Amino acid sequence: MTRAAVFGSGSWGTAFASVLADAGCSVVLHARRREVADAINETHVNAGYLPDLVLPDSVSATHDPASAADGADLVVLAIPSQSLRANLGEWGAHLPTGAPVVSLMKGIELGTGLRMSQVIQEAGGVEADRVVVLSGPNLSKEIAVRQPAAAVVACSAIRTAEQVAQACATAYFRPYTQTDVVGAELGGAVKNVIALAVGMAEGMGYGDNTKSTIITRGLAETARLGAALGADPATLMGLAGVGDLIATCMSPLSRNHSFGVNLGRGLSVEEVVAITLQTAEGVKSCGPIVELAATHGVDMPICAGVTAVVESRMDVRQLGDELMARPHKHERH
Amino acid sequence: MTRAAVFGSGSWGTAFASVLADAGCSVVLHARRREVADAINETHVNAGYLPDLVLPDSVSATHDPASAADGADLVVLAIPSQSLRANLGEWGAHLPTGAPVVSLMKGIELGTGLRMSQVIQEAGGVEADRVVVLSGPNLSKEIAVRQPAAAVVACSAIRTAEQVAQACATAYFRPYTQTDVVGAELGGAVKNVIALAVGMAEGMGYGDNTKSTIITRGLAETARLGAALGADPATLMGLAGVGDLIATCMSPLSRNHSFGVNLGRGLSVEEVVAITLQTAEGVKSCGPIVELAATHGVDMPICAGVTAVVESRMDVRQLGDELMARPHKHERH
Repeated sequence: MTRAAVFGSGSWGTAFASVLADAGCSVVLHARRREVADAINETHVNAGYLPDLVLPDSVSATHDPASAADGADLVVLAIPSQSLRANLGEWGAHLPTGAPVVSLMKGIELGTGLRMSQVIQEAGGVEADRVVVLSGPNLSKEIAVRQPAAAVVACSAIRTAEQVAQACATAYFRPYTQTDVVGAELGGAVKNVIALAVGMAEGMGYGDNTKSTIITRGLAETARLGAALGADPATLMGLAGVGDLIATCMSPLSRNHSFGVNLGRGLSVEEVVAITLQTAEGVKSCGPIVELAATHGVDMPICAGVTAVVESRMDVRQLGDELMARPHKHERH
Repeated sequence: MTRAAVFGSGSWGTAFASVLADAGCSVVLHARRREVADAINETHVNAGYLPDLVLPDSVSATHDPASAADGADLVVLAIPSQSLRANLGEWGAHLPTGAPVVSLMKGIELGTGLRMSQVIQEAGGVEADRVVVLSGPNLSKEIAVRQPAAAVVACSAIRTAEQVAQACATAYFRPYTQTDVVGAELGGAVKNVIALAVGMAEGMGYGDNTKSTIITRGLAETARLGAALGADPATLMGLAGVGDLIATCMSPLSRNHSFGVNLGRGLSVEEVVAITLQTAEGVKSCGPIVELAATHGVDMPICAGVTAVVESRMDVRQLGDELMARPHKHERH
């Protein structure tokens, strides 16, 4: 029986622990706070995140990273992007050598511009052929109620990807293997920014043509950045790209989308934060993504426009006008 | 001033006539029934389809195909797919030689399996380098209120595509040129079948992960068919593919989507037709598309499953199980 250690007991870490258990793994879920781990062991429920999900008996929890990692055949990381490096510094040495390390995280590290798989290699000392990225249209709340979904499992070593895919395949969760790690990872990072743009359009009163156009052209600019970083643009057209993007942009549960709606109504970032008491991942990552694009000479007009609105350099109404007024061209340029 | 003749006074023909007028063309709209043409000339409104759209003064209407075609620099066809051939037989001889003929139609001809651009060539005697396909996320009701949208204008001769793009570009309607006619046309034909599948999932109570997965994998099978027919798979990832598909699957206005929801609730095709008094394009075209795929040895599991449900060979609940139980594989296969 595969023994899996899942670090991070938020919504996605918890839901994925349940997927692994359904797939036949024995799972230890690491929670930073002892009382959360204790409550999960007592009630089989992670009440703070997924109160309706009763975890299978094969999921246990601990607040001790060393005992979570001990003897694991498979390690899964579902930690907030910006604290991954600090976490790995703290307990990364306990990770078993040789086991695949799967990233469920979607973000770009502020300051360094690194993707999560790169941080895992750099700060966790994990070799590239053990680092696996899992991504796709996977809203945690729907996975938790075992609705059918698919995902991409990417690793430079295809055998490792296949091993991880086998460990998490269930009747409702369908993994597809991939070797394009950069492509699988990039879609998840950029989609939050595109979701902000789609939300803005909605907030300004625009309909499905406009939103679909933003999604499609957003995908085109993500693929351009991907190509510059060595990804296969086709990956961005798959589950980790268009699939994840559509789920995020369709779902009323998406925080980036809702944040964008408020910006579209004319509120400033500060006003939205003051009202909702939340920020959105895309608000943090839009700047680093545009910087990354500039470094590689890639044109990303939607991301650049979102960044300008977020940084109060452009009025949201102006954004639409600017995008529509660009020179006409061939679709593929 | 470009003189455009638009044949077909349904929602999309009428809305596109308005786009052409906004772009500076003088437009004659052909309506089959004299009273419709007369009413449009008197009121500047096509009350049966878009009662809220006041057509610009530069749009006039006629029920006489010869006078509609007379002196046109540009011909636009927005006729129901299955009656295109009969229409061209009736008045195709009046079409001006040399003018681009733009298809706004999305369908596959029953019996022949031909795309609309092929029917235009065959039944209208129009050379390939004059046949243009315009497609994208273009819900007529949103175009009519001048919401921002983009489209693909495809022709084997890029100059002709550019000429048409210039004739219809406005501040709210942004055309992108293409030379991949097959790709631009195929997305529109298959999306109705995928929208049925997405509707079915919704009718069975599934959420956004499942729907996004169906859209993404539906796109993959559309791209496979496209590749077999000589299209560039990348076109299917653009406005005429993913863009149109998302708009159709997101919009509550889509008839295919609603039809699928009723099938997902367990009704038969006959029961849905009896209740809604409507059929859906995807119900007619799923069979021909699956046949076309079989002829070219292309695997289209979603379209095949939809066809089986539509033809009452499979229970809708079985469809989801079958798709999820297929062997696991690389995303690109």
